[in-house]
Amino acid sequence: MQYIPAFSKLVEEFEKLPGVGSKSAQKMAYYIIAADKSVAKTFADSIIEAKQKIKCCSVCQNLTDKELCSICANEKRDASVICVVEKPGDIDAIERTRDYNGLYHVLHGLISPMSDVGPDDIKIAELLVRVSENDVKEVIMATSPNVEGQATAMYISKLLKPFEVKVTGLALGIPVGGSLEYSDSITIAQAMENRKELE
Amino acid sequence: MQYIPAFSKLVEEFEKLPGVGSKSAQKMAYYIIAADKSVAKTFADSIIEAKQKIKCCSVCQNLTDKELCSICANEKRDASVICVVEKPGDIDAIERTRDYNGLYHVLHGLISPMSDVGPDDIKIAELLVRVSENDVKEVIMATSPNVEGQATAMYISKLLKPFEVKVTGLALGIPVGGSLEYSDSITIAQAMENRKELE
Repeated sequence: MQYIPAFSKLVEEFEKLPGVGSKSAQKMAYYIIAADKSVAKTFADSIIEAKQKIKCCSVCQNLTDKELCSICANEKRDASVICVVEKPGDIDAIERTRDYNGLYHVLHGLISPMSDVGPDDIKIAELLVRVSENDVKEVIMATSPNVEGQATAMYISKLLKPFEVKVTGLALGIPVGGSLEYSDSITIAQAMENRKELE
Repeated sequence: MQYIPAFSKLVEEFEKLPGVGSKSAQKMAYYIIAADKSVAKTFADSIIEAKQKIKCCSVCQNLTDKELCSICANEKRDASVICVVEKPGDIDAIERTRDYNGLYHVLHGLISPMSDVGPDDIKIAELLVRVSENDVKEVIMATSPNVEGQATAMYISKLLKPFEVKVTGLALGIPVGGSLEYSDSITIAQAMENRKELE
């Protein structure tokens, strides 16, 4: 591209989005330039508006535009179970199963010394307050089964020990519809270890 | 996602971008929500700014933030050759070859009855004015070799007949580095037809 500062700037901004490389960023910038002025304005406004209106639920740290998120505000949910996840998107994944009726707690990150993220940088203190002040029977650690996810789960489960609450983790194994042939050996080893008697 | 209007709106806006599906759009929206307020503001501003500052070159319709684009303003370029392309991004592709020293003309679209785009909806009239008012020796039709691209090239070449200007098209054939085995048969047929004596 012949250098046009405003265009290069826009491409750069698009490149910052997750999963967007320089080619896609250019395509997106061209789309904006070709679109109606109103389209660009609506787009820019929706970014500012979302940023202004959306905040974290005061209880579970999920995203919401109210004081409480829709799950915490729902009295039919079982408040004695808290499922701890890394990010708001993980809640969507679990909610899609329509199988879980407890509450959530969003950490907004994982402990990761490599990325300079310590226990105080994520919402662990808020979780401890919830567990200490409410009648919580079980905390399900649903962080992803990678190094950071498992380290964070271990760290939190140790902190929860004094509260005499049951701490569980998601089962590891071959995904449904997955193929044994193409599963990695750690997953297969886990699936072997956690094998269940068939009924 | 539990329904948060401002969030859904933002996801919708991201989905309008080329090549962005609903999953990617959600990831992008989560990125905006998780980012600093200043990041979101800079992003939104860059959209508005690009839209305000960037316009079409008064000669070739390429994007520019001045009256003339950098190619039309460059006196070292050969003004007797005009390469006609569909969109500004095509100019980047040709410029990267560092092989072409003429000027361009951007149509900003292709004739496409299916999408209700007629000859008057793209910058054909501007091309005819350029050819009639300047000493143009050759017009290279570099629209993509698909149905719309070829139809548009044919249409324009007919309109250019009265001006006694040479009208050429890009060569069709197997791409360099491409594989004969995986080339489609129309491309192979074209490559056969346009075969050249080896020196």
